[in-house]
Order: sequence, then C-alpha cells, then structure tokens
Amino acid sequence: MTAREKHDRMANAIRFLSMDAVEAANSGHPGLPMGAADIATVLFSRFMSFDPIHPHWPDRDRFVLSAGHGSMLLYSLLYLLGYEDMTIDEIRNFRQLGSKTAGHPEYGHATGIETTTGPLGQGLANAVGMAIAERKLADEYGSDLVDHHTYVLAGDGCLMEGISQEAIALAGHLKLNKLIVLWDDNGISIDGAVSLSDSTDQQARFEASGWETVGVDGHDPDAIAAAIERARSSDKPTMIACKTTIGYGAPTRAGTSKAHGSPLGPEEIIGARKALGWTSEPFEIPSEVLDDWRVVGLTAGKKRVAWQERLDAADATVRGEFERRMRGDLPAGFESAMAKYKKQLADDQPKVATRKSSEMALEVINGALSETIGGSADLTGSNNTRTAQTAPITPDDFSGRYLHYGIREHGMAAAMNGIALHGGLIPYGGTFLVFSDYARPAMRLASLMGIRSIFVMTHDSIGLGEDGPTHQPVEHLAALRAIPNHMVYRPADAMETAECWELALADTGSPSTLALTRQNLPALRTEFDKDNRCAYGAYEIASAADDAVVSIFASGSEVEIAVQAKSALEANGHPTRVVSVPCLDLFAKQSEDYRNAIIGDAPVKIAVEAGIRQPWDALLGYDGIFVGMNSFGASGPYQKLYAHFGITAEAVTAAAESRLHDHAGRK
Amino acid sequence: MTAREKHDRMANAIRFLSMDAVEAANSGHPGLPMGAADIATVLFSRFMSFDPIHPHWPDRDRFVLSAGHGSMLLYSLLYLLGYEDMTIDEIRNFRQLGSKTAGHPEYGHATGIETTTGPLGQGLANAVGMAIAERKLADEYGSDLVDHHTYVLAGDGCLMEGISQEAIALAGHLKLNKLIVLWDDNGISIDGAVSLSDSTDQQARFEASGWETVGVDGHDPDAIAAAIERARSSDKPTMIACKTTIGYGAPTRAGTSKAHGSPLGPEEIIGARKALGWTSEPFEIPSEVLDDWRVVGLTAGKKRVAWQERLDAADATVRGEFERRMRGDLPAGFESAMAKYKKQLADDQPKVATRKSSEMALEVINGALSETIGGSADLTGSNNTRTAQTAPITPDDFSGRYLHYGIREHGMAAAMNGIALHGGLIPYGGTFLVFSDYARPAMRLASLMGIRSIFVMTHDSIGLGEDGPTHQPVEHLAALRAIPNHMVYRPADAMETAECWELALADTGSPSTLALTRQNLPALRTEFDKDNRCAYGAYEIASAADDAVVSIFASGSEVEIAVQAKSALEANGHPTRVVSVPCLDLFAKQSEDYRNAIIGDAPVKIAVEAGIRQPWDALLGYDGIFVGMNSFGASGPYQKLYAHFGITAEAVTAAAESRLHDHAGRK
Repeated sequence: MTAREKHDRMANAIRFLSMDAVEAANSGHPGLPMGAADIATVLFSRFMSFDPIHPHWPDRDRFVLSAGHGSMLLYSLLYLLGYEDMTIDEIRNFRQLGSKTAGHPEYGHATGIETTTGPLGQGLANAVGMAIAERKLADEYGSDLVDHHTYVLAGDGCLMEGISQEAIALAGHLKLNKLIVLWDDNGISIDGAVSLSDSTDQQARFEASGWETVGVDGHDPDAIAAAIERARSSDKPTMIACKTTIGYGAPTRAGTSKAHGSPLGPEEIIGARKALGWTSEPFEIPSEVLDDWRVVGLTAGKKRVAWQERLDAADATVRGEFERRMRGDLPAGFESAMAKYKKQLADDQPKVATRKSSEMALEVINGALSETIGGSADLTGSNNTRTAQTAPITPDDFSGRYLHYGIREHGMAAAMNGIALHGGLIPYGGTFLVFSDYARPAMRLASLMGIRSIFVMTHDSIGLGEDGPTHQPVEHLAALRAIPNHMVYRPADAMETAECWELALADTGSPSTLALTRQNLPALRTEFDKDNRCAYGAYEIASAADDAVVSIFASGSEVEIAVQAKSALEANGHPTRVVSVPCLDLFAKQSEDYRNAIIGDAPVKIAVEAGIRQPWDALLGYDGIFVGMNSFGASGPYQKLYAHFGITAEAVTAAAESRLHDHAGRK
Repeated sequence: MTAREKHDRMANAIRFLSMDAVEAANSGHPGLPMGAADIATVLFSRFMSFDPIHPHWPDRDRFVLSAGHGSMLLYSLLYLLGYEDMTIDEIRNFRQLGSKTAGHPEYGHATGIETTTGPLGQGLANAVGMAIAERKLADEYGSDLVDHHTYVLAGDGCLMEGISQEAIALAGHLKLNKLIVLWDDNGISIDGAVSLSDSTDQQARFEASGWETVGVDGHDPDAIAAAIERARSSDKPTMIACKTTIGYGAPTRAGTSKAHGSPLGPEEIIGARKALGWTSEPFEIPSEVLDDWRVVGLTAGKKRVAWQERLDAADATVRGEFERRMRGDLPAGFESAMAKYKKQLADDQPKVATRKSSEMALEVINGALSETIGGSADLTGSNNTRTAQTAPITPDDFSGRYLHYGIREHGMAAAMNGIALHGGLIPYGGTFLVFSDYARPAMRLASLMGIRSIFVMTHDSIGLGEDGPTHQPVEHLAALRAIPNHMVYRPADAMETAECWELALADTGSPSTLALTRQNLPALRTEFDKDNRCAYGAYEIASAADDAVVSIFASGSEVEIAVQAKSALEANGHPTRVVSVPCLDLFAKQSEDYRNAIIGDAPVKIAVEAGIRQPWDALLGYDGIFVGMNSFGASGPYQKLYAHFGITAEAVTAAAESRLHDHAGRK
C-alpha cells in the first residue's frame, strides 16, 4: 500500500463518518468535512502534537475549526484518533439532544474541542488569542514548557466576516509565526459561488497585513504537507490557501452549494461510496483504517511524555506556578493584597471615577497576579486599563503584559476568549460600554463557553457627556444582562469596584463586564468589610431612619443620587432605604428569602439607573417607579444631561413624594 | 493672491473654527479637522456637487465623514458654505445641549449631515450603500436624473474596524466606481502611533479587493485634486491615501496623539495662529475668506438648476414616480394589493413558517413597490428574502433588485442604512436572528437616525433546532427591544406577518426587525380584518369562554402554544384568553386604557416566548408566570428542544392550574 493510498483511506474515513452522521441526523453539513478531509488528515497525521489520553496537556498544538458548521470533521477526527469520550455512539447521535456531537462544536461537550465555533470568523480570532498566549507563556516559561502551534481551518465565511480582518491585522502586526491558517478555498457559499458576492484576492489581502501565504491543491497531501512545513519555519503567520472541492466524492453535488448544508441523500452517498471505493457499512471504519488513525493518536502522545519529563525536572517553584496558572487558580497572596487595599480605601475614601478606581484595583491585582494580560481597543488612557506592571507587548518582545489591540473591539474580545481558552493567562480588555455592541458576538460566545474573559467597559452612561448619543450607552446594560451566564457589574464607588474585580477574577465559569464611569463618584462604602457585599448582587447600602416607606434601588453612578434623595426624603419625614445593586445577575441567584428581604416592603419602590427600565421591571413590579432613560442620549456636559433627562436626586425625591401623596389620598 | 494662498486661507478657516469651537466647548477633537482641512477644501471647492439652499437635492454628491469625531470639519464646512441652519452661533455652541453641533455628526440635526457617524467604520459602510443606491437609481432613471459621487473621509480607526473589510470587499466586488474614499493617513491613534497596533499596507489591502488606490501628500492641494480626478475616471472604487499631519499647524501637538481628542489650550492655539498666519478673533472668519467659501456654495448650486430643468422636462409619470420615491411615500396601489392578499390568506389559511409567509408577503410587496431592494448575508434560501421580482444585482448589471451581500451581516446592515439614507429605495436584508449581534452597531445607528431599514431575521428561537446554541437566539428579542426606536415584530402566522410588513414599510421614522420562524405555524388569524391588528402591538386573539381567570400573552411561534393551552384550560373549566403580542414596542405606545384592557384582570397571567423573561416583566408584574428560556439553547430536533426547555402547552396549562390552585387555597 502506498503512502497515498493509506492517506486516502484515512481521509475517506472522515468523509464517510461525516456523510453517515449527517444522513442519520437528517441535518448537518457534509460539504466541508468531505472537502477538507485531506487537509485535516495531513495536519493531524503528520504535524499535530496532542495526546488523546491527556487531552488537556498544556503544550499541545491547538486546532481550531473556525468553520464550525463542519463539526463532523472534528468529531470524526476525535473518534478516529481515540479520544475516549468521542465514541461511535456519539457520532451516531450527531445533533441529538444530550449528545457530545452538537450541530456546531461546543467547548466543554467533548475533550479536543478547543473552542465553540459556528458564528463565522470567531474561531480565527480565538486562534489569534491562543497564539498570543502561547508566545507570551513561552516568553515566561521558555520553550521547554511552552512551544506549540495554533492551526485554524477557516472557510470563505470566516474570511468574509469583518472580524477576520481585525484578527488578521493583529496577528500580522504581532508576527505570530506559530499561527497557521488553512483556508478551505472551495469557492462555494450558501447562496452559490463565492463569486456572487466576493472578488477578493485573499492571499494578497493577508500579505497586506504581514502574512506569509501559499496556495496549494487541497487534495494533494504532499503539497499540503510541504506548505505546512514552510509555514512552520516562517517568521510570520502563514495562510495556506487550499483549493478544494466542497463535498469531494459526491457524484453530483460535489463542487456545488448543495453539498454544503443538508444531507446528501442515499443515492448520492451510494455514488460517493462507489467513487471513493468505500465498502464498509455506515458508521463502520475498517479496522486497518482505524488502526492507522489510532497509531497517529498514540504516536502524537509521545511528545507529551518528553514534555512531562521536562516539567518534572523544572524548578519546583516554577513548576508549581506554571501548574497553578494552567489550572486557573488565583495565587495565595491575592486575597490578602486585596484586603489590604480595601482597608486603605476605607481610610482614603477617594472621590474618583470608577474607571479610575478600576485602575487602582488593577494596580493591586496586577501586582499580586502574574497571569493577568491587559489591553484596550485603542482607549488605554480612557479605559484606565494599563498599570505600572503592564508594559506593552510588541511584535518583537512579549515580556510585557499589555496589548494594544487597535481599534478592533470585536477582534479584541474574541482574542481574549482565545487567551482564556488557552489557559495560563487571565485576559482583560477595555473599550467604551457603547462599543460592547461591536464585541457582542464574541462576548456571547464567552458566556456560552463559560470562560473567564473580563471586559472593562468604561464611559457607561450619558455621564460621558459631550461625545453624544453615538457614544452613550442606554440599552447596553439591559442587553448585556440579557445574555445568559454573563455577569454585568456596575460598581458605585472604589470599594465596590474592588469587590467586583475580586468577583470577576474568582469566577472561572463566567465572563464578566465591568461597567465603569467616566465621571467622579464619592466614596459611599467607607468601612472595610471582610464580606464581599457585591457578591450578593444587591444589598442595603443605607438603611432607613425608621420603618422605610421608600426603597430606592440604584447601580453605579446613580447610587450617589439615591443616597442624596434619601437624605431629602428623610428630611421631609419619609424614612427611606437605599439598596445598591452592583450586579443584577448575582442578585437573581440569591435565595428567595434574601431577595424578598432586599426588595423589602416599603410601599414606594424606585429604581434609578441611567439606562432603560427593562432589567428593573422584575424588581419594580407594576407599581415601582423608574428614574432613568427611555430614549437615546444627547451631546452636552454631563451634569446638564442628567438634569435634562431627569435623573437627579430632586426627580427621585419628587417622584417618591408624589407617590406617597397618592397612597395617603387613597387611605 | 495665488491659488495656493487662497486655498490655504480657506483651509485655515476650517482649522481655526475647529480649534476655537473645541476650545470653547472644552471638549472635542481638533486633530482631524486641522489635519484634513486641505483634503476637505479641495474636495468641496473643486469637486462636490451640492446646493446649500436645497440641501436635499437628490442628485447631490454625498459626503460622509466616517471619522465622525472630526465633526468640526463638517460643521465648519457647512457654515462656510452657507448652509442656513449652520450659523456661527451653532459653531459657538459646539457640543452643547440642544445645539445642532453635537459631539459627533447627528443625522437630522442639521442639513448637510448625510449620516450619523462616530462609531468607527460605519460611515464607510453607509457610503457603500449610498453608492449602491446611486448606481441602482441611475440604472432605473438614467444619468440625467441620477449621476453623483459618494465621497468618504475615513480615518485609521475606520480602516481597523472589521466592518471596513466587509464594506471594502462588497464595494470592490460591485465595482462601485463612483465611490471615492479619502483616507486621512495621519499615522496616529488614541494610544499613540498606529504602528503600536497595526502594520497593514492599506493600499495593498484595498487593491486585493479590487480597488484603485493612490497615495498623495494630504497637504498638497494639487496632488489631492489630481488623485480625485483620476478616481473619478476609474472603473473601480478608489481609495486615496492622504498622508497628513494630525493637528496640522499646532506647534507642539501636531503629529501626536495629543492633538486628537482634547482642546489644544490657549498657548498652543496662539502658536498655531502664528504658524499659519491667522490674525482674526476666535470664531471670526475674514470676510474675503468667507466670500471665497460662499462663492463655492453658490457655484456648486448651479448644477442643481440644470438638473431641475431636466427633471421638469421628464415624462410626467417618471417624474411623479421619481419624486414619490425620493419622498419615501408608498405608492397608491400598495394598500389594496395587501388587502387582496390578506383576503386570500383568510381563505387559504396556510400552515407555513413565518419566514415563508414573509416571502409570500414580499411577493406582493415587491410587485406593488418598485423601490424595495432585497438581500441577504448569504442565507437567501433560509431567509426567504428573494422573490420573483428580485433578480440579483451583479457588478455589471444593476437592473436587478437583490443583493448578495455575502457573509457580512454588519456590512449589510450599514449598507442598508446608506441605501435608506440616500433615498429612493427601501432596503430589506436577511440573516439569522442570532446574528443580529454581528449587525447590532449598524442596527443601533438606524434606530438613532430613525431610518427605514428593514431587517429580516429568521430562525428566531430554539425552533431552528439542530444547529444548536450558537445559532439559537435566546436573548436577542430582549436585546433588540432594548434599543430605543427600534421596532421588533414577531408575527404568529401569515396574516400577522403581512400586517407586520405593512407596518414596517409604512414606518418612515424607525427601522424594523421582523423575527421569523424556521418551523411551520398554523393560521390563527383566519378572518380578513381591514384594521391592522398588529398596529396595536398586542391584542386579544382568542377571548375567554367566560370571565377569564387566566390571560396568556405570547408572541410568534408561541401563540400556537398559548391557544392550545387555552383549549386545555377551558376544557378543565378555566376560562382563558390569549393575547397575541407581535410588537411590545408598539404596545408600549398605546393609551393606558388600551394597555390596561389588554393586560386585563384575570388573576393568573402567563407570558410565553422562546426567549428570556426580561422584556415581559413589565407586563407580568411580580405575580406573572413566564414560560420561556433562562439559559442558552441546545442542539437537537426542535420539537425535542421545546419539550426539553418546557415551552409547551402542557407546561403552560400546568403552571396556570397550579397557580389557580394556590389562589383557591388562599381563599
């Protein structure tokens, strides 16, 4: 048997598992796995470092299927290579409820799935983050412990999405030469030929951003291998354009959009079996072919053994720290450093913007943690994301801890996800809260995957002032809170900001957004408390002088307003309590008793937030009053905007008194 | 006086107005207007067709300041050129509440502002839409009536945002040769030199997508003019890279990021006055310089007179239709065509997915309206956005009415905004609802501008099935409803779909999103009604057999479930009414009486929607029950998903009965 024959039958194993699974599910995408089977076979059988028995081995190569609809390519590989949890039954249950083989690869469903993909372009940008993480950790720990590649299989859709440009430009700039993108250049998209909507010379485009590129026949194993070899020795990231036929092997659908996203049907599959000489039953892989694949899996694992020996031989402190960071645990000294800082805050009672108190917290955090890696989408001085410890990373020097992500919010968020997925680092990155819209698809995926990406979103309301409505978030707190498993924090002062940072860093199962002000805020929490009060999501920050007749709920910059209104109301004889609500998501997770106690039974309830009412309705019920926004903002000095939109202590006081008056009248 | 001297003082007028306005506001961005003043002066004084007295002249050239932070460049131009509403007082009131001179250019605040910009990259993509509209209308009406250019001034930020790639690739593909982008290549971003985060060869990048490019000294008027001349005769879109100095003229800040986003300060301005030989008082333009500019404005207007003569000479029907379309009115026959279609629906009672009934409605709409221009981000067959009337537009033939936007949701939405802003066409475009996240920044701007972009968002819930959670919207209805002035429609059957389309088309002040199912739904509205019931946002679709003890509120595909639950509840002796809620946004606009009547006083209230609860809290109060999603979805056949997540008639019935039981127990 020639090497080519062996290759072909290994590749065909992917093709037929994919065809069979899609057919059984009566749903799915056979075209990509069939077209890219040769690429994947070459990559995994000749290049990839990984270990099916130790799938989380930190120094494994990363493989990202950016074209996530081709999930059966990945599932087939994992099964064939011997990943234990990817059984043939899972393949048979493709796209069924409860299976590990979801329609698109879901991170956490099965080992070997490095990231959740499907929304196009995300995987490519995740991979940039993974390659950044590799380079950064290699700089810290040396190539003995960290030396691996990141491979991406991307489709036309990935390259058409705008996020791809952000990713490509960032990778090219940073000279991420261990990032290798294999473009499945099949010339087909859902509507038909790619030429219906695109005429871009993709190789020229990548080259314009500092990439190496090479074009090959995506069905010629040796050509693919030569291209990967060349890519691995380049000092730039490389894009390999692999000319392929979508649905390769299908007699009438190959090379057409009909092969893309639906089962081929029995007749077409019979034709493919004939064309490719495949005689096994559906879901059956000839034992000699399975052996070929399993040998690949076993052989690849040998590198891990050598690596483990190097790790074992390393300095115990280095090893301990490396292992801690890869586990994602926070270091021992962190808690006490934060406690010391919070005691200092209680003494100093600084009147600063929460973006500034975030920077102050980060000075402590970045001092106590070596694994944080900061950045901003070109708003460093505004987001206050850089601290004394974080020198910029440059293309030729990765000793820094700060990334100038450029004006690329979406690429930043997706790269942060890649950094978090890689492990060993905790990424945080900043932009204006309003531009969370640009980053939203990646923020959603962070939430779906449950990874620790921390988004520092400053200028969190009309409080940003003169830049006007295009820059003023109004609906963004609501829209981010709406994402499942996304923690939105909006601290009211420096103490709450410190607490929210603690919560975000400790949360290994959810991404967090910190919504922070541009404008200064007074210290409201002026005593040190060992208990992290923000952990409850909402808590009484100022109790009423007597049995409360008014409860005011507020977050962030509006807690100050609530406290002022309380004073005015109590001066007028209306006992009033104030509840600070730094995190509605956490509040919703508290016990019913706690929630009821916090909501309280004061006859008048008011929520104050310089955003829309929607997230507060649950707390306010029918009767509650909302003081906030119900339109876009405007351009002007922020104090005037607060007055213009009626978000003032006077407005809160007046609304409460009017309602108290109504109640009295009714009695 | 030489031509150059005249140019310089005209350009300096922009520079000093900008410096003075930013200084007075103590906020703003002087750097771009100072750096790009030469480009703008050349463009407006030598090339632009426009008429300050008739600013809405349909055949004017469009100028888009994509780098919206440089708003003072535009405001200065409008003032200098004699646009009536841009007075010197407005310039003096830059960035003040209520002025026309907001921090970023706001469409509708002053004439001559063609689009709202600030969120980077949007203007560039709007301009692609404007150029598409021009080419399309020129194809329909001939160059006598439609023959103008679209000019864009873009900054580094615009080109770094991913949306720029989508826009560039689409424009290059469509050969939009009347689109000319002037890149303010000043090498500076907020964090410092662009080289901190980017190494892209922008000219090579544009060329890779089929653009002509040329590089010039952005302070050399004749070089700029020659480049624009060349661009105007190209058969491709052109990008002119203009090497400039940010803050040109400022003695110490020019060429640095310090010139970008804050006032220069009195000393720096004194230095600039000295350097540029400017002796007038702040906000004062020497009369001879103002005259030079006003002559430009008057001269440019002459083209409009000739154009008006051509329009007057045109066939009366053509003229009438052209004027109607430019006004944005719907044609006379539309209402009756829809009435006829709805009568037919009442007869046929089709059981189809709402994506299909949207296609059916579009067949009628596209037959009755010549101005609709459809498209999809490469999901044509899934979004059902193409009808018999809409042949594809190709690079060489714009006679069609359908755009293959490619896998570019963001670029599509922003281009649609540009088409809507241009006038004469009504854009609609499709993708999956979950990918509204990709398009969200442009959808927000459509809402802020109040323009008629219609987003056709199919696969609107877990009902899409096997593609899994990456493709299943859960929070998207909430997140879109959260955007002020954005109408979210979720029709329950073919009749409601027709009504929602009527509402979206008639609404010239808001963009609309139609959320549509993949799965089939029965006809629930089986009688023809002249009154558009969806116009109320919510209405009783099934009344209770007796005084209702249960009210069920539902939208879209869940109305069927509500109706089934009603039957079950009434069979058990619990009179139940069902309220269909196709548009919560419209419901919120109804009178309090109407809203109260619709909410009703049944003791048990249940809302059913395959999304999160947040938007329903206002309707449910504390006591209401919600049957919907509180997590991400899953991959599986959709019926199983509905059962798995408990969104079934049985679940609704059980929840209602349990609550009724509690109530009875309490009595």
